[in-house]
Amino acid sequence: MSEAEVFSPGDDVSSSGDMGLVVVGAGGRMGQTLIRAIHDIDGVRLAGAIGRPGSPHIGRDAGEVAGVGLLGVSITDDPLPVFAAAEGVLDFTTPAATVEFAMLSAQARIVHVIGTTGCSEADDEKIRAAARHAVIVKSGNMSFGVNLLAVLVEKAAKALGPDDFDIEILEMHHKHKVDAPSGTALLLGEAAAEGRGIDLASQSVRGRDGHTGARENGTIGFATLRGGSVIGDHSVILAGTGERITLSHHAEDRTIFARGAVKAALWARGRKPGLYSMRDVLGLNE
Amino acid sequence: MSEAEVFSPGDDVSSSGDMGLVVVGAGGRMGQTLIRAIHDIDGVRLAGAIGRPGSPHIGRDAGEVAGVGLLGVSITDDPLPVFAAAEGVLDFTTPAATVEFAMLSAQARIVHVIGTTGCSEADDEKIRAAARHAVIVKSGNMSFGVNLLAVLVEKAAKALGPDDFDIEILEMHHKHKVDAPSGTALLLGEAAAEGRGIDLASQSVRGRDGHTGARENGTIGFATLRGGSVIGDHSVILAGTGERITLSHHAEDRTIFARGAVKAALWARGRKPGLYSMRDVLGLNE
Amino acid sequence: MSEAEVFSPGDDVSSSGDMGLVVVGAGGRMGQTLIRAIHDIDGVRLAGAIGRPGSPHIGRDAGEVAGVGLLGVSITDDPLPVFAAAEGVLDFTTPAATVEFAMLSAQARIVHVIGTTGCSEADDEKIRAAARHAVIVKSGNMSFGVNLLAVLVEKAAKALGPDDFDIEILEMHHKHKVDAPSGTALLLGEAAAEGRGIDLASQSVRGRDGHTGARENGTIGFATLRGGSVIGDHSVILAGTGERITLSHHAEDRTIFARGAVKAALWARGRKPGLYSMRDVLGLNE
Amino acid sequence: MSEAEVFSPGDDVSSSGDMGLVVVGAGGRMGQTLIRAIHDIDGVRLAGAIGRPGSPHIGRDAGEVAGVGLLGVSITDDPLPVFAAAEGVLDFTTPAATVEFAMLSAQARIVHVIGTTGCSEADDEKIRAAARHAVIVKSGNMSFGVNLLAVLVEKAAKALGPDDFDIEILEMHHKHKVDAPSGTALLLGEAAAEGRGIDLASQSVRGRDGHTGARENGTIGFATLRGGSVIGDHSVILAGTGERITLSHHAEDRTIFARGAVKAALWARGRKPGLYSMRDVLGLNE
Repeated sequence: MSEAEVFSPGDDVSSSGDMGLVVVGAGGRMGQTLIRAIHDIDGVRLAGAIGRPGSPHIGRDAGEVAGVGLLGVSITDDPLPVFAAAEGVLDFTTPAATVEFAMLSAQARIVHVIGTTGCSEADDEKIRAAARHAVIVKSGNMSFGVNLLAVLVEKAAKALGPDDFDIEILEMHHKHKVDAPSGTALLLGEAAAEGRGIDLASQSVRGRDGHTGARENGTIGFATLRGGSVIGDHSVILAGTGERITLSHHAEDRTIFARGAVKAALWARGRKPGLYSMRDVLGLNE
Repeated sequence: MSEAEVFSPGDDVSSSGDMGLVVVGAGGRMGQTLIRAIHDIDGVRLAGAIGRPGSPHIGRDAGEVAGVGLLGVSITDDPLPVFAAAEGVLDFTTPAATVEFAMLSAQARIVHVIGTTGCSEADDEKIRAAARHAVIVKSGNMSFGVNLLAVLVEKAAKALGPDDFDIEILEMHHKHKVDAPSGTALLLGEAAAEGRGIDLASQSVRGRDGHTGARENGTIGFATLRGGSVIGDHSVILAGTGERITLSHHAEDRTIFARGAVKAALWARGRKPGLYSMRDVLGLNE
Repeated sequence: MSEAEVFSPGDDVSSSGDMGLVVVGAGGRMGQTLIRAIHDIDGVRLAGAIGRPGSPHIGRDAGEVAGVGLLGVSITDDPLPVFAAAEGVLDFTTPAATVEFAMLSAQARIVHVIGTTGCSEADDEKIRAAARHAVIVKSGNMSFGVNLLAVLVEKAAKALGPDDFDIEILEMHHKHKVDAPSGTALLLGEAAAEGRGIDLASQSVRGRDGHTGARENGTIGFATLRGGSVIGDHSVILAGTGERITLSHHAEDRTIFARGAVKAALWARGRKPGLYSMRDVLGLNE
Repeated sequence: MSEAEVFSPGDDVSSSGDMGLVVVGAGGRMGQTLIRAIHDIDGVRLAGAIGRPGSPHIGRDAGEVAGVGLLGVSITDDPLPVFAAAEGVLDFTTPAATVEFAMLSAQARIVHVIGTTGCSEADDEKIRAAARHAVIVKSGNMSFGVNLLAVLVEKAAKALGPDDFDIEILEMHHKHKVDAPSGTALLLGEAAAEGRGIDLASQSVRGRDGHTGARENGTIGFATLRGGSVIGDHSVILAGTGERITLSHHAEDRTIFARGAVKAALWARGRKPGLYSMRDVLGLNE
């Protein structure tokens, strides 16, 4: 927290009290979830809401659109003055929009929390450039729990070697999900592979049916369940002779990503400019 | 228990005290497990031990072979006099041997507990014939828990219809298992299909990988985990909107099959001749 | 379903098409959840909404109050004409109000689904009287899953006796819950005790700490976890020698009670007057 | 592994080939389990077996006593020449015996793996003194899985603070266990408290029954299940708003402690003298 000292006295006005956050993509489903999360969590307030030009939400009250009642913040399509008056931006939009917002965040020298997925290497390069002036936190999954689990899985996979322990990854999602395994299951698989120092793609077993033969040492197995309205359950099992370790994450609802983003913004407040990850926020890179 | 009354007073001698049981296949791994189970459970005693003609175990003490110390019962290859002096037979051997033993049990009018798998229709016909004089309990899985679970799964699958609840079956076994899904997973799938009144084979989803599309209503999904020394874990999940029921069985060791066989023999003692199942033993057909 | 035949042709008008349901207590939290459930489920429509006299919601559109948009149904404090024009009533209110509504349901000869808790014996007597003309479904827990689980637990507890299997009940709820164990845990304990033919109160072990001595055969143990925002997880464990059965229910959100009530109304449509339970709805008393 | 280089060429004879291990307390239940583990694991061989003076096992073959057949190693009550010819000692005995064996291990400059519990501060002082010449690995729980889990729990408890996540610890053991919570549950609780920087004793909630009030932030709850023949299951749950992490260990049998001891001896072979823990063996202190 000593980085806070880089702020000059004149900043006191903005850094004291609740942190003012801007939600971009405010009319979308995730934008509305972010507005509700800001409304629920102590220490932050909605300082602005940006919608797409031409969106029917432009001009409406952001709180009403998100279902939490009037907040006195209208959705606008002009980010520049809004960013200038805020301390941070929460952004789950598209790569193209995110790159624009990152440059504006750099100009305003504020916090930019990026949950946008699908950025190209060129996009990431621009975001890194923006991070010379903005305090950027970027992650493919903003949930505290999943990010922590990945770190624990890597550590466990490293400590318990392939001759003694077999790694299996199980996930369950709702019946509407159209792909398998889930992105988070693969993220956990990558963490396990990293811990083992192996290549996930060539060591994955993505299904078992019929005569499979005995399990091959060192592989990582995936199994998928689908049904009902399950938001997302993931388990990584390390099975040895006579004992088993299971590391699991259970998501109750999608707000955990919004909550993680708000927490990341609070953590980033007063930090030095730079590009950070959720592992930094959780203190897991120390 | 009212069937006990059909026995004449002369039966009192044999039905009082510990039940005398014969283990066939006494030199094999399952035979030895049965001998140990008889040794551990109150109300039964080892009355005889039958080995294959030519087996190196013939003439040795059955207790020593099974690792529980001298029991004073030698392994022999001549079942006739042994059956005549016993009240029941525990049999996890081969279809051909089991058919022979069933005829001997019928002659001796004793209990015959059959855990042998792979019987043909012709074998079953002969066993049914023997059951006119013997009290036969036959099941593909002698574990109390698995038999009960199958009944519960059928009931649940019937009560919670396919429009509201999706059924998934998960199993985990040790890394040496060469086929998937396990026989018990399929048995549980059959129970679910029976409850739903559907055909399991055409409604099974035996794996999911890549772009699978949304889950089809009414199907039954299977997922398989392999690793370590897991004896056998099975879960049947019924996932609805907003809620989930999970019915699970966890096996700690293989002795549960032997224990189930001994319990079946005790249940069968004094019953009328006939062909019974573990569901009868558990009182689940009432 | 043969009861449907008692309806005269004149009933066709009302029993064809979506079932018209009235929500009482429409301004409350559970009332709003019921309105949303009616909105989400096929085969039913909101036919009326009753609020308390003097409530600020009187005169407002029920859909708007519940957050699903205009439904064209105003909240009123006069149930009589609303019941007359409807086929069923969903009622999670208070014992006093429920008794009144039951008499009105009897006059209108419609379905009355009662999730109200805390009814006295005198209240129940009046409800039974109303059930001579109304089709009443009443349950302390409207979730399909919990009602099914209780039936399965009773069956399992009966099949697996106290000498062989120990019963333990585990529950987890959010950190704000102020009592332990949960009402549903006790309901499951009652089901287990019923299966065993024992008295729950005298056979419960409600906590273990320090030197407890060995477990007493035949007791039913309870364990409680509290934390986070868990809606409600319950597990009944039957632990034997070498094997374990676990029967679990996981609630994702509170809407399962509203959904259960709507399903109960659809099941009750066209039934003969009488007092039914969720076990009847689930076909579990057959 | 660079420490191996401190060994002179003359050590090559002993450090090549299978590592010769001595089991002390060879006639006891844990001693026999250790002998079987040595027999099962590659890279080690039984080099000696020490029994109590006057034990009926003295002079018998250690393999026969342990049930793995003749090993050509007689149980003796004179450790000095046996230690001199061995590379390591596995010791799950009593504090008094362990202190003696540590001094002999120091004289022989060999590996000493200590699973003995209940050592006093004075005992530990003597063991530390012996570790100036012996390579000692000492732990209250030799299982790889439990030791790893404790490290993961500490890390998770540190990353997910008490305002956001509640910690609960659940354990299940067989019906004969007379105390609660288990020593391992308390060990995991200590790990969580260490991660949070709090005092476990004053922050524990050891049971919940009746009107408990809402959960207090920062406390660590314990819940205990007892039943059947469960060897030992432990779960640490971190429950936040909208998500939950569960870190579990499942023990299938008691051999995991023996296997852990053998693995510790193999890890210690060729190390510099010193006092190490299972965390060192697992590479978890790096």
